[in-house]
Amino acid sequence: MAADVRQAFLGSFFHTPTYGSFEYLEDALIEVDAGGVIARVVREDDPRHDELVRAYHDSGVLVELGQGRYGLPGFVDLHVHACQWPQAGIALDEPLDRWLLERTFPLESKFADVEFARTVYGDLVRQLLARGTTTVVYFGSAHLDATVELARACVDAGQRGLVGKTVMDDPTANPDYYRDASPRKAVEETAQLIREVEAMRPDAPQGVWPVITPRFIPSCTDEVLRGLGNLAAEHDAYVQSHCNEGQWEHDTVLARFGKEDPYALRDFGLLREHSIMAHCTFLTPDEGALFAQVGAGIAHCPISNAYFASSVLPVKRLREQGVRIGLGTDISGGFSPNMYDDIRQAVMASRMLETGVDAQRPEPERGSGDARISVVEALYLATAGGAEALGLPVGTFEPGRAFDLQVVDTCLPYADLTGFGVFDAPEDRLARILYLSTPENIRQVYVQGRRVIEK
Amino acid sequence: MAADVRQAFLGSFFHTPTYGSFEYLEDALIEVDAGGVIARVVREDDPRHDELVRAYHDSGVLVELGQGRYGLPGFVDLHVHACQWPQAGIALDEPLDRWLLERTFPLESKFADVEFARTVYGDLVRQLLARGTTTVVYFGSAHLDATVELARACVDAGQRGLVGKTVMDDPTANPDYYRDASPRKAVEETAQLIREVEAMRPDAPQGVWPVITPRFIPSCTDEVLRGLGNLAAEHDAYVQSHCNEGQWEHDTVLARFGKEDPYALRDFGLLREHSIMAHCTFLTPDEGALFAQVGAGIAHCPISNAYFASSVLPVKRLREQGVRIGLGTDISGGFSPNMYDDIRQAVMASRMLETGVDAQRPEPERGSGDARISVVEALYLATAGGAEALGLPVGTFEPGRAFDLQVVDTCLPYADLTGFGVFDAPEDRLARILYLSTPENIRQVYVQGRRVIEK
Repeated sequence: MAADVRQAFLGSFFHTPTYGSFEYLEDALIEVDAGGVIARVVREDDPRHDELVRAYHDSGVLVELGQGRYGLPGFVDLHVHACQWPQAGIALDEPLDRWLLERTFPLESKFADVEFARTVYGDLVRQLLARGTTTVVYFGSAHLDATVELARACVDAGQRGLVGKTVMDDPTANPDYYRDASPRKAVEETAQLIREVEAMRPDAPQGVWPVITPRFIPSCTDEVLRGLGNLAAEHDAYVQSHCNEGQWEHDTVLARFGKEDPYALRDFGLLREHSIMAHCTFLTPDEGALFAQVGAGIAHCPISNAYFASSVLPVKRLREQGVRIGLGTDISGGFSPNMYDDIRQAVMASRMLETGVDAQRPEPERGSGDARISVVEALYLATAGGAEALGLPVGTFEPGRAFDLQVVDTCLPYADLTGFGVFDAPEDRLARILYLSTPENIRQVYVQGRRVIEK
Repeated sequence: MAADVRQAFLGSFFHTPTYGSFEYLEDALIEVDAGGVIARVVREDDPRHDELVRAYHDSGVLVELGQGRYGLPGFVDLHVHACQWPQAGIALDEPLDRWLLERTFPLESKFADVEFARTVYGDLVRQLLARGTTTVVYFGSAHLDATVELARACVDAGQRGLVGKTVMDDPTANPDYYRDASPRKAVEETAQLIREVEAMRPDAPQGVWPVITPRFIPSCTDEVLRGLGNLAAEHDAYVQSHCNEGQWEHDTVLARFGKEDPYALRDFGLLREHSIMAHCTFLTPDEGALFAQVGAGIAHCPISNAYFASSVLPVKRLREQGVRIGLGTDISGGFSPNMYDDIRQAVMASRMLETGVDAQRPEPERGSGDARISVVEALYLATAGGAEALGLPVGTFEPGRAFDLQVVDTCLPYADLTGFGVFDAPEDRLARILYLSTPENIRQVYVQGRRVIEK
């Protein structure tokens, strides 16, 4: 019983330390230190296991998951527009321009009201935590004050938050009622956000970070893109944006700069190690190689992509190229706050990319071949993959990583995941959790060793 | 206050009496007669509304949905393999032959044990009801006794069930441990099922029907297909099967009969009015016209199709051809027992068919164009569309239809669907229910005027 261990969790855990396979830790003991970091994982067949369980039990620091409950790592959601939370699930049948001009921009502009921001952000952070999401990369609105509130909401609720003030300064591309007043103001406010969020860090053992956040190249002037790139270098800060989501974005950037979106972002200093770029569905093999080379990550948002990207991210190819990929819900281009929905859609979309979608085409013209990913690979993207993209020690139950846990109860009356015990191998139990669980099945959530949800 | 009205439901209701639009009945009164059939819908602006509400309240037959709750029609699920319920959500990464031979057939063969069947079927019927599904078309296993249990489970729980004993008699196509002993035995047992289920009907005000159920042509001998076609004509019975789900099925039937699957089914007397054919993803325009002409229905199973059909059903084209289409979960080719998941996937898949999935192809070669359906159209498929395919008076809140209701609470602590009141038009409220509701939001379910779920 190590001196620095403050809690020990006894139960059965699933995680994905390597891409493509899972590990099942049955009746294991996870020791967590005072900082909320995993000190050691003691497997059931370890000769010290039973003695340690007794010792932790006697000293009152043993937490037992309980019968029929399983622990999974907390999810890492790489792409959430926090200020679009009130828009989740609506108007997805409208064309993109109406969706933006009649819904999204008017909604985002309401976050000038800090009280409104506090209400919405407090709710969103709590809802995502309750669905097992312990680390989130957020776009706030274009308002500095509201974005500071978003960081505060993460600190208060104990969620690991990476938070950006959206920059959108080009007067020809954004509505007058909702844009940055000038490139200089946008850069200044981003610098101010960096200072304010960094000042919050002592209150957040789980961590909170500022993110430099140009909405996407077509929303921004050259001047602001240069200014933000400089800030990123100066503070070695996280950057997030959208990249190569569709034909229009691709063509617009190419026409403006004579080069594709990823190269333009790189040349402004915005495509860096641990930059998170949403979508990237139009990424060519060369552009994938660029991402791998600089260490930038992709937020794969398969639900959103069905509505707005006109294509499926070739995850398999990009992973083979060495690109870091995690999952994002993309609230509200994606309707669901539930990462399990994106795990499922990531698998389905990959199969549709592989086989094609139109049976009326001649067979050889249908699919793109060899593109499918498994549900276990999708779980990796939702946990360890997101962690890798961010360079944060989370996403698995390994020593040295933060202890972020969701506890899934498989025995609820209306959400039973036991399958009558017919197929009961670990891979079957895990697949049932991934495919059939509902938010109701998640009963407890821990971030950095601290319990933040208990239902 | 009409004499034959036994209950009156006061609340706000959504339904889709015509394809492509919805009707919102705010604070309406739905009068239900002694048989569970809707007698009248009294809108809020009807001059008699308030007086009727008082009268029903005073006579103790008023049911109020309550604040923040909405009524939707119960769902019609056109395709469920009841005996695959213990397999839901697992092994979907395995190739089809292993999925069938190592999982599905061994599982289905367990239903020789009637006790096991009673346990699984009782649970499944209750779980589907709890998710708002009030009418279901079921494949049972190949066992007569277990399939009678399935019908009994529907009767006992008050679900409207259409129930078939799966026929799979070809010794060259099915495992020895799990198939019909002979074509004659298979037809006899199907005839016996018809008699037994029809004998149950007096106990089931909501209705229960036998369904003639050849698994699909490749599982069956010519003799059994002929025998089942004769039975269908003799009893004017429902028929269900799989049709044109993929290239292999298409090619196999063509090689055997020199004609495509739909024509072969028709020529055996199995493609009739209100026959329900699952998938049909490979249906050509000519075959769609045949479906429209005979009045056969399609069970569109968009989740399952992502795994096993290699294509997306062209719903828009087939609807324009006049084909009757409903939705099916296809447990367990589809993982979810929740029809909301299939509503969402029907929309996403239609958009992926429209725009294509592979951005590396030249733009003109990507999508199939003009294929998208709206979420309101998907709701129609899940309710009125399924009703139309079956020729049953359910699926909407119109006089003469059975009163099948799911009550959705939009104000739960961890499943709030009110969106902060920002976008609060009826279409926004409905879209939030369709995209964001979880099984937990469904609090009560009624079938034929009788409450069968109360959480």
